[in-house]
Amino acid sequence: MNAADLRLPVDVPSTALFTDRYELTMLQAALRSGTADRRSVFEVFTRRLPEGRRYGVVAGTGRVLDAVENFRFDSGVLDFLAAQRIVDEPTLAWLADYRFRGDIRGYPEGEVYFPGSPILRVEGTFAEAVLLETVILSILNHDSAVAAAASRMAVAAGDRPLIEMGARRTHELAAVAAARAAYVGGFTSTSDLAAGFRYSIPTVGTSAHAFTLLHDSERDAFTAQVDSLGGGTTLLVDTYDVTEAVRAAVEIAGPELGAVRIDSGDLLLLAHRVRQQLDDLGATKTKIVVTSDLDEYAIASLAAAPVDAYGVGTQLVTGSGHPTCSMVYKLVARADEAGPDAPLRPVAKKSMGGKTSIGGRKWAARRPDAAGVAEAEVVGTGAVPPELADHQLIVELVRGGEVVAREPLDAVRDRHAAARAGLPLSATQLSRGEPVLPTEYL
Amino acid sequence: MNAADLRLPVDVPSTALFTDRYELTMLQAALRSGTADRRSVFEVFTRRLPEGRRYGVVAGTGRVLDAVENFRFDSGVLDFLAAQRIVDEPTLAWLADYRFRGDIRGYPEGEVYFPGSPILRVEGTFAEAVLLETVILSILNHDSAVAAAASRMAVAAGDRPLIEMGARRTHELAAVAAARAAYVGGFTSTSDLAAGFRYSIPTVGTSAHAFTLLHDSERDAFTAQVDSLGGGTTLLVDTYDVTEAVRAAVEIAGPELGAVRIDSGDLLLLAHRVRQQLDDLGATKTKIVVTSDLDEYAIASLAAAPVDAYGVGTQLVTGSGHPTCSMVYKLVARADEAGPDAPLRPVAKKSMGGKTSIGGRKWAARRPDAAGVAEAEVVGTGAVPPELADHQLIVELVRGGEVVAREPLDAVRDRHAAARAGLPLSATQLSRGEPVLPTEYL
Repeated sequence: MNAADLRLPVDVPSTALFTDRYELTMLQAALRSGTADRRSVFEVFTRRLPEGRRYGVVAGTGRVLDAVENFRFDSGVLDFLAAQRIVDEPTLAWLADYRFRGDIRGYPEGEVYFPGSPILRVEGTFAEAVLLETVILSILNHDSAVAAAASRMAVAAGDRPLIEMGARRTHELAAVAAARAAYVGGFTSTSDLAAGFRYSIPTVGTSAHAFTLLHDSERDAFTAQVDSLGGGTTLLVDTYDVTEAVRAAVEIAGPELGAVRIDSGDLLLLAHRVRQQLDDLGATKTKIVVTSDLDEYAIASLAAAPVDAYGVGTQLVTGSGHPTCSMVYKLVARADEAGPDAPLRPVAKKSMGGKTSIGGRKWAARRPDAAGVAEAEVVGTGAVPPELADHQLIVELVRGGEVVAREPLDAVRDRHAAARAGLPLSATQLSRGEPVLPTEYL
Repeated sequence: MNAADLRLPVDVPSTALFTDRYELTMLQAALRSGTADRRSVFEVFTRRLPEGRRYGVVAGTGRVLDAVENFRFDSGVLDFLAAQRIVDEPTLAWLADYRFRGDIRGYPEGEVYFPGSPILRVEGTFAEAVLLETVILSILNHDSAVAAAASRMAVAAGDRPLIEMGARRTHELAAVAAARAAYVGGFTSTSDLAAGFRYSIPTVGTSAHAFTLLHDSERDAFTAQVDSLGGGTTLLVDTYDVTEAVRAAVEIAGPELGAVRIDSGDLLLLAHRVRQQLDDLGATKTKIVVTSDLDEYAIASLAAAPVDAYGVGTQLVTGSGHPTCSMVYKLVARADEAGPDAPLRPVAKKSMGGKTSIGGRKWAARRPDAAGVAEAEVVGTGAVPPELADHQLIVELVRGGEVVAREPLDAVRDRHAAARAGLPLSATQLSRGEPVLPTEYL
């Protein structure tokens, strides 16, 4: 099944207009001045993590690969650019033939990152590489923000499943990407059907208060739900009185009732009370799902409560206070003349204001200590020291315009869990602190 | 030109899967229990504004109308639902014929709102109305959050133009909706080409540091840009030394240079210094554009500086600290039996935990004081008092499944400006405070 065939806008049929206008006008000026074909290296990195965060999570790389493949200017787009006089005729002709033919390397998706980590590196002519800036940053900044929040929530939840329920709290297509990023960060499932469709993430659902209110009584609603969906369903028990609802739920579904959901009130207190009641009624295997504006701290505070699963919405899809990362896409090296073999020269902005960056094409490695635990993120521009050769982080993603590193989402999710497990223990403390690894520049 | 023809995923060809799984399983259970055809009224409202905010801005309504029209289950979607066993055969058959045939009323887009304002009201059978919950909330929660931030920034900017530049800081399609919402809130233009394409919002652009670094010198870069784009272009002057760059810019482009952009450093100080230098060089009409992590407070702090336009990115698309609204979609009334003429009964959740709501289908009016300034948001469930009849807020949007209230985006933008102007003056204070109008329930 192909999402494009369905005209469902979760695939990326054409991504060329997800682009700031200045990328195209810079292209036009560079074509005119003869600098457009200078070989160039752009790197994506952040200058800092969100305040207090211990690590970042690279997410969206797979979506970047889709976006690069589908970055084409068809006639409709070209007509628009012409009608709006955004670029001149020679530039339109150049765009009509555009496809990215360069190379992309970067941290594999799911890896953790730190300030200065060269998360993605795009090499090609200036012209072909500059165009990709906006869409690459959109994807990585959004998806990595959600994945970072998801990862912290996954740590807080331990072995308990996490259900992504945030679709209603974010843009309808951002929701699909958010469900994907949440899965990378450690979530178990999503409520969002489009995410199930597009990325094969397991979907789950319970019931809303509206369903109870629709029926003449809560018992009628529970009966209707169990009759239709079976005793393994999850009944929502906080529309009226929780104790009464739990009694009715077990009476109607039997002790084999799958789960009850609590969506309001003092979740800690209610979870204990409901667990006791369920056990007294013989429903010892009936699970308790809690929802209601949870974040990683609320999840952690329920660690000792008899909760079996968490549903998380708002705080997940908004990055738990940090809805975007501060990744930038910077030219770090370029040739003095056109041609694939011209030597590269490091370049960097040199003005005041803290926005300077380090020129030169970089490698990155994560140095382990004697016990095998990561102790530093090492970033350099020269030769890789032999002792770091086996600890390099950057992999090949696109070679000569062809994607070479597609992978299943489960592999990405596993990589993230492994990368996080390789960090010092303090990485998973929820409290605010410095990045858990220092970044060293060689 | 039609976005769907271009396969550009900014239109909404099918929105049916932007839906939480439980909407479909509730549908299945209601079909089975015989309650699916009970006439039902759902209302969208918030229980609170983001902390400290004085008013909310309704945005996304036009996108909701698109989404409702395109909420169809085609064979690909149905195959997915069947393969995943999400709903049973009778439900699949029902979905295959689905289109919304009910009525939608609500605040017109661009209006302001307050806690309890019934922003949108969906009436139809339970089955047809419950399905729309997720996508309606996604759109309104996202777009209204961005519009609210935009509106505050527009107040802070006064008559100076505001450029939306946030595409790289949010999901690539959320960016398109964000540019639209920003325009509603008072922004002047966007950098995002897809937003220009889809919504005809004026697009603008300057240049990036990469363009300067690509060339052998800053002067070479400025010459290339002016040669290609003309003297009316905007030159970026903070790659190396600002004073040197401004001198070169005017020398190369002449005193007719369109604008310079400053993207780092102490913007207040630099704006004054650059203005003086431009004037000294005779470039008295050359404008100064500032960018660099601006929010409404930073914009306000530059009110006395010689700044001609602001470019805003991160803080706009993330709602300036509040990236989502807390709008909910609640069943407030329903019939006891199927059929269009069965009387409606108010319903509401009655449990603890602060999530209760007020049952019954509501009207809303904004009561003016003697001077014509709004003094209260009045929400009621009975007859509208005669003195409020001319001040009602709710308009018809969809009648019997047909959209009846499409309007140009400029009309929405004008409505927002007028609605804000009708509020007490303290509405536009940036400082934290209570909602500027109390909500009274009748």
